[in-house]
Amino acid sequence: MLKILSIFEPIRQELEAVEDRLRECVEVEVSLLRHVLNPLLDSGGKRIRPALVILSSTFHKADEETLVPLAASVELLHTATLVHDDLLDGSILRRGSPTLNTSFRAGAVILVGDYLFARAADQAAATRSVPVITIFAQTLMTICGGELGQAFNGAGWRRTKEDYYQSIYDKTASLFAASTETGAIVSEAPERTVRALREYGYNLGMAFQILDDILDFTGDEKELGKPIGSDLRQRTATLPLLLFLEIDPGHDIVSFVFDEPQAAEEDIRTLIEMVKSSPAIASARAEAEHFTAEAKNAIRDLPASEYRQVMLDLADYLLDRRE
Amino acid sequence: MLKILSIFEPIRQELEAVEDRLRECVEVEVSLLRHVLNPLLDSGGKRIRPALVILSSTFHKADEETLVPLAASVELLHTATLVHDDLLDGSILRRGSPTLNTSFRAGAVILVGDYLFARAADQAAATRSVPVITIFAQTLMTICGGELGQAFNGAGWRRTKEDYYQSIYDKTASLFAASTETGAIVSEAPERTVRALREYGYNLGMAFQILDDILDFTGDEKELGKPIGSDLRQRTATLPLLLFLEIDPGHDIVSFVFDEPQAAEEDIRTLIEMVKSSPAIASARAEAEHFTAEAKNAIRDLPASEYRQVMLDLADYLLDRRE
Repeated sequence: MLKILSIFEPIRQELEAVEDRLRECVEVEVSLLRHVLNPLLDSGGKRIRPALVILSSTFHKADEETLVPLAASVELLHTATLVHDDLLDGSILRRGSPTLNTSFRAGAVILVGDYLFARAADQAAATRSVPVITIFAQTLMTICGGELGQAFNGAGWRRTKEDYYQSIYDKTASLFAASTETGAIVSEAPERTVRALREYGYNLGMAFQILDDILDFTGDEKELGKPIGSDLRQRTATLPLLLFLEIDPGHDIVSFVFDEPQAAEEDIRTLIEMVKSSPAIASARAEAEHFTAEAKNAIRDLPASEYRQVMLDLADYLLDRRE
Repeated sequence: MLKILSIFEPIRQELEAVEDRLRECVEVEVSLLRHVLNPLLDSGGKRIRPALVILSSTFHKADEETLVPLAASVELLHTATLVHDDLLDGSILRRGSPTLNTSFRAGAVILVGDYLFARAADQAAATRSVPVITIFAQTLMTICGGELGQAFNGAGWRRTKEDYYQSIYDKTASLFAASTETGAIVSEAPERTVRALREYGYNLGMAFQILDDILDFTGDEKELGKPIGSDLRQRTATLPLLLFLEIDPGHDIVSFVFDEPQAAEEDIRTLIEMVKSSPAIASARAEAEHFTAEAKNAIRDLPASEYRQVMLDLADYLLDRRE
């Protein structure tokens, strides 16, 4: 039986259909490739984005033939970006398994990511809904454009909070929002419901990414399945660090870690400890709580249902998660 | 005035509209990025694929609002694959300009390629035609799947001609065929015309790639704007080499160049000369001529027009090109 988050039990059947579709999408003839693609899908993704598609479609009547490819497409798109990100970050571990680029050379990583993008586009096209496909393409542009801007224009630790918020929208909240919006659209929900569900997805995504960024300071490496401090190691300033600097702008160690080539792992560990023991973590958490409250508020007026309850529970679950 | 191939004069206006759209698509705020993206489009692409879209739409009535994004999407998709290919190949020169990866690191190359894929998907979606979008997505899968299979399953010089033909379909002819097919579809041509135009595009693409592979042996490096022998340097066996082996399977130098790590540039140059002076080149050219004849034959029954004439001329032009 498929392992899913317990709060997702009410949509188990739909998630299983999506899982089958994902399997089909990475079913390839080349056996070496199969060994690369299968673990990407196996390694414990929580399938939050497909669940968002499914849950958002429950307020009206959605056709399974549209819902399954749509949910598969958002997960494939997400997986494709993870694959290319791993190469960009050079991260050693993700979801506890060695990432592709530790065992394969860069070329293969590019090709596998591109193939997953192609599969995602194909599943989006299989919905045969022009509005859905348009949102899919625009979200892809937002994600890629955001990464590109960051890479070419990154301001290091001098970035503003506004810049941070824009970047977590681009990389995470845009796909959460697209998942809930398109889920609503395929159920032919009225415009007001579509807007409310998009709003829920947007706020959930913002909270999700802030939590992720907090856990990169405070998390337990065993529970996370990856080393903490990866943002600092890539010289990316996230909310906890920005709030740390807001409280006391005079921390020389920040400019040292970001700007000096001789900054070492030891300095990064010291900075992590300083941020962790500062009030910045509680302030960042308060911002995540704010977005979570906004997410729940967005679906307040939708008819009460088992599924709406799952969406409310999911918001709390994501805020309290430790991995 | 936009520089175009002289045979494309009858569709100058349409090609200029596509060019404007391409500019808009790489118009980004980040100035550093603009310096990367603009040359990609500037550096002398012949715009063959957009021209194929436009020409194929002329047999019935196509709406410019659909045609322009469609033509832009195939060119953006083509450019995206070139960008990622450059990283895969490590080729030093393409179209005479330094490729992205000589001046930027791999990460930027991935991101720029992904961004162009996203832009291509967005332009495809802008056609608002589900059949067109579906063909676009499936062509993307064919291209990426083909590259992936090649990378993970490449048989070196032991590959069959069948394998070679499949791979040039995947990497080149599939997008030529998609360009002519979708051009026909947006003009609401009847099924028979769509099939004939797809057939033309397919055969033109096969001939185009065989010529490319011949020029990698026989070309003039100045005219080509890149070094010859790049396929051999990547240990890719193309038609001239396969025909060379067919004539005389006992050439030890082939297995030496492909299988021995100590094979050097000098050995590659020797092999190039051997293939060049063998009858393999004429045989490969005969195969390209065959596909060219098939391309022209495919549109024989379409109503004669200035545009059909361009398509016939294009087939000859591509066969006789030296770059």
